[in-house]
Amino acid sequence: MEMKELSPKECHAILQRAETGRLGCSFENQPYIVPVSIACDDDSIYVFATFGQKIKWMRANPKVCLQVDEIKDHSRWSSVVAYGRYQELPEPQFKQQREHARKLLQQRHDWWLNAVAERRIATKDVSVEPMFFRIQIDSVTGLGTE
Amino acid sequence: MEMKELSPKECHAILQRAETGRLGCSFENQPYIVPVSIACDDDSIYVFATFGQKIKWMRANPKVCLQVDEIKDHSRWSSVVAYGRYQELPEPQFKQQREHARKLLQQRHDWWLNAVAERRIATKDVSVEPMFFRIQIDSVTGLGTE
Repeated sequence: MEMKELSPKECHAILQRAETGRLGCSFENQPYIVPVSIACDDDSIYVFATFGQKIKWMRANPKVCLQVDEIKDHSRWSSVVAYGRYQELPEPQFKQQREHARKLLQQRHDWWLNAVAERRIATKDVSVEPMFFRIQIDSVTGLGTE
Repeated sequence: MEMKELSPKECHAILQRAETGRLGCSFENQPYIVPVSIACDDDSIYVFATFGQKIKWMRANPKVCLQVDEIKDHSRWSSVVAYGRYQELPEPQFKQQREHARKLLQQRHDWWLNAVAERRIATKDVSVEPMFFRIQIDSVTGLGTE
């Protein structure tokens, strides 16, 4: 089996097919990884989440990455990492982008409910509001089997 | 569906069942994630890899994390993050630990071959030697559905 570097076009195609990914953030050089629900367009990754450690860390350090993979079996797989910058999408100034993100994420509503339920359990607060954010992609890199 | 925080014992049980994980490292506060083949015992995660960006970064900053998850379906899943410190296991002083790691990793030899092949393709160097490293676990945290 041989591996090859994926082209930016191949990386973007894998990102756009992905429903979930692993978000990496870092605070004082301590990395943290969390599985998230995602939807991508050409230059951004939209992520749904509730307030938590990862949001606090990304506010302090907006340099993030997102890793996705497609694993058919041990000899047929690919892995892509997108590097980018965390950006919140608060109302009302990002209303249009939030609507765009909401449409892209719409098919993954189970994961939305998960994230909201998680936060509600953790805080005992049933009024927790979901939040979106965006990762503006700076670069992509990937490896895959030929 | 409700989620709960997993106990350290539950987190360690999930880590010990895992064959693969996502390794997070960080350099100058830029996080990076790579899928890796792993094997765990009570206080360490053993990882097989070849020399590459992730090794360079971890030498510069040994604070790392490793995330694993078990996803049965959207309503039954768990995710664990272990925080720890990167430690190389060079010969000959870590001969015993390398042998221990080798035994633990033995059942995942396809992934070993992947990592070696990856490096050989990237460097055109067929003499690339595999390397092990260890993550000494400092703490674990996890969430799962009940």
